[in-house]
Amino acid sequence: MPFRSRSTIITLLTDFGERDGYAGATKGVIWGICPQARIVDLTHDVEPQNVRAGAFLLSRHCRYFPRRTIHVAVVDPAVGSQRRIVLVLANQQYFLAPDNGLLSFLTDTEGARFYVANNAKYWLPEVSGTFHGRDIFAPLAAHLARGEKIENMFERTDKITKLETLLPENTKTGLAGEIIYVDRFGNLISNIPAEMIRGPHGACRVEFGDADIGPLAHHYAEKPPGEALATIGSFGHVEIAVNFGSAAELYPDYRKRRVVLVFTKG
Amino acid sequence: MPFRSRSTIITLLTDFGERDGYAGATKGVIWGICPQARIVDLTHDVEPQNVRAGAFLLSRHCRYFPRRTIHVAVVDPAVGSQRRIVLVLANQQYFLAPDNGLLSFLTDTEGARFYVANNAKYWLPEVSGTFHGRDIFAPLAAHLARGEKIENMFERTDKITKLETLLPENTKTGLAGEIIYVDRFGNLISNIPAEMIRGPHGACRVEFGDADIGPLAHHYAEKPPGEALATIGSFGHVEIAVNFGSAAELYPDYRKRRVVLVFTKG
Amino acid sequence: MPFRSRSTIITLLTDFGERDGYAGATKGVIWGICPQARIVDLTHDVEPQNVRAGAFLLSRHCRYFPRRTIHVAVVDPAVGSQRRIVLVLANQQYFLAPDNGLLSFLTDTEGARFYVANNAKYWLPEVSGTFHGRDIFAPLAAHLARGEKIENMFERTDKITKLETLLPENTKTGLAGEIIYVDRFGNLISNIPAEMIRGPHGACRVEFGDADIGPLAHHYAEKPPGEALATIGSFGHVEIAVNFGSAAELYPDYRKRRVVLVFTKG
Repeated sequence: MPFRSRSTIITLLTDFGERDGYAGATKGVIWGICPQARIVDLTHDVEPQNVRAGAFLLSRHCRYFPRRTIHVAVVDPAVGSQRRIVLVLANQQYFLAPDNGLLSFLTDTEGARFYVANNAKYWLPEVSGTFHGRDIFAPLAAHLARGEKIENMFERTDKITKLETLLPENTKTGLAGEIIYVDRFGNLISNIPAEMIRGPHGACRVEFGDADIGPLAHHYAEKPPGEALATIGSFGHVEIAVNFGSAAELYPDYRKRRVVLVFTKG
Repeated sequence: MPFRSRSTIITLLTDFGERDGYAGATKGVIWGICPQARIVDLTHDVEPQNVRAGAFLLSRHCRYFPRRTIHVAVVDPAVGSQRRIVLVLANQQYFLAPDNGLLSFLTDTEGARFYVANNAKYWLPEVSGTFHGRDIFAPLAAHLARGEKIENMFERTDKITKLETLLPENTKTGLAGEIIYVDRFGNLISNIPAEMIRGPHGACRVEFGDADIGPLAHHYAEKPPGEALATIGSFGHVEIAVNFGSAAELYPDYRKRRVVLVFTKG
Repeated sequence: MPFRSRSTIITLLTDFGERDGYAGATKGVIWGICPQARIVDLTHDVEPQNVRAGAFLLSRHCRYFPRRTIHVAVVDPAVGSQRRIVLVLANQQYFLAPDNGLLSFLTDTEGARFYVANNAKYWLPEVSGTFHGRDIFAPLAAHLARGEKIENMFERTDKITKLETLLPENTKTGLAGEIIYVDRFGNLISNIPAEMIRGPHGACRVEFGDADIGPLAHHYAEKPPGEALATIGSFGHVEIAVNFGSAAELYPDYRKRRVVLVFTKG
């Protein structure tokens, strides 16, 4: 899969924030090496050092990018220590990250190939102990986008770190899961993906702790303002939301509540 | 007005926030369809579901973009319900938005043409109930930027939703308005546009509730630090500001205060 | 140094924030004049009107951008008054800013050349009193990127405003400095650059007020979670950090604490 076009997309998902210029300097390095790259900020506001949140966001958003996109994910609490830097080729896209579980969702992908960065010649001449996003990840992604051969910068490896993922449990009557992400609207996203739900939307009832939320809605506007609903949200997972409001505010104890789906037919 | 160049600018104005990757996925969809589009984040931080604030920002900023720019505005409380998706051609620019009043400011524009999206062939194959920004608006804007004919994706309509706009009142001695937007500096922006003021800046005196603010200043630095002033601000409207400070903090009851202009000559 | 390519990078460092669309309108103006420019948001979240913080960020990040990059810095408390607008050519890059000390770090650069904007023909036809970023800086940067001659838009000047910089003091046993910037992680960045430290990292001991921080660490992970460490951080300065935590929270009185380096050998 060599690059014909240098206008490859490079996405950045980090916990650098937007405030201090860290993300900007990272782009300076990329464009210094590969001026034609198109750079997208997926987000720079992953909760600092929250590897699980970063992995969830990347796993859900990456499918909306075209083939050959290079995803760079840097949530890196162990920056500067001996943790590896890994590249995964999967689903015709590239994923570059520290080997701390950020790419767990790709470990079982059919045909995925795994690599470890091993050639400092392609990094910045001076590598800081605290900012490998700028000093190592950015130049590697840019050289990749420019058409440099993977084999010159990486060596094959058998496997990468896999975090235990939180999967929903099967119950006698359906599924039981929990909240794994809260978005800026206060929508509470569960670990239950749409693919695990049998039948059409109406075929189950949702409980959230002691609250009976009713059947899955098709969109927020099905409930009056201020009332809770459950729906398949933008991430493709079951989420608890409030029309014109915040579910995180309505249920401040959301961490303690289970999301229970009871299949009613099918 | 067919597109000669595919490097068209697409602006995004949403309430998605920057934190959860929603805006990033939207760009992935756009670039998957039209790789040459240049994308500008106008803002992703409109107060959630505040259609009026989004309309105000878009109406004031759009004039700074070149002809053929495609403005995509998604503040969409009724996402997934039967509300229409509309396209407006006005002032040689394109405006794509849910039909909820976001484009009210264009309804009386001379020569404006109105369209409704009617062809799901140009949307993502799988449309979620909660995220039309990514699944419908992004592909429509990208196909438009690529040169697809409007008629293939939309049909003409006579009119679109128009919100009642808050206009200032004429008084015996001048104008009386109110605060309609507060920016990040705490500047209080009124609904009085510069065009409604007769004569040069000095020709009126401004009252803000019980506070006498004095004549219109030409810039913030005319008053000592900490003191309130009135000026024609960056949005082209009369605003109450504080040099080296925040007017929203100085007047926490700003919602209750009227902005009164008393014309002193002319 | 005429421009061969119009795909010049323009960086933006401002205190406009991301919320109100000010940065977006600025980009609209740039792309209206120079469609091929590549624009990077270095940051729009400099603390409002904090010229020192803006100068620090720009001085540290600019080195990561390629030659011919045009850096536009707008932290401009005196906008609209008679302060000058200056351009500096230094280190084969361009720097455009209000003449208020934002470019202090370039005043002693060998070979630097200084200019003052003097030709309103290259600004927007209508210049507001409050938003020169959009109305003057953006068009100047865009014309520069397009290849317009500097002499047509600026005239030479001998010097620009220089803020007193906070330099560390030499002590009998080493260096004493202070905290000049706090990043989003709560890392406390001192005014002591790596270049002032003699010998390798281990050759000094760091005190932070009454706290003995120990020798310089090579990276955050050298200390257990929650414990303070000193390291050469991403800005190339000595910083106080906490592995998996925030130094600003651990030392809320950080403004009163001195950063003292005691050289232990070499």
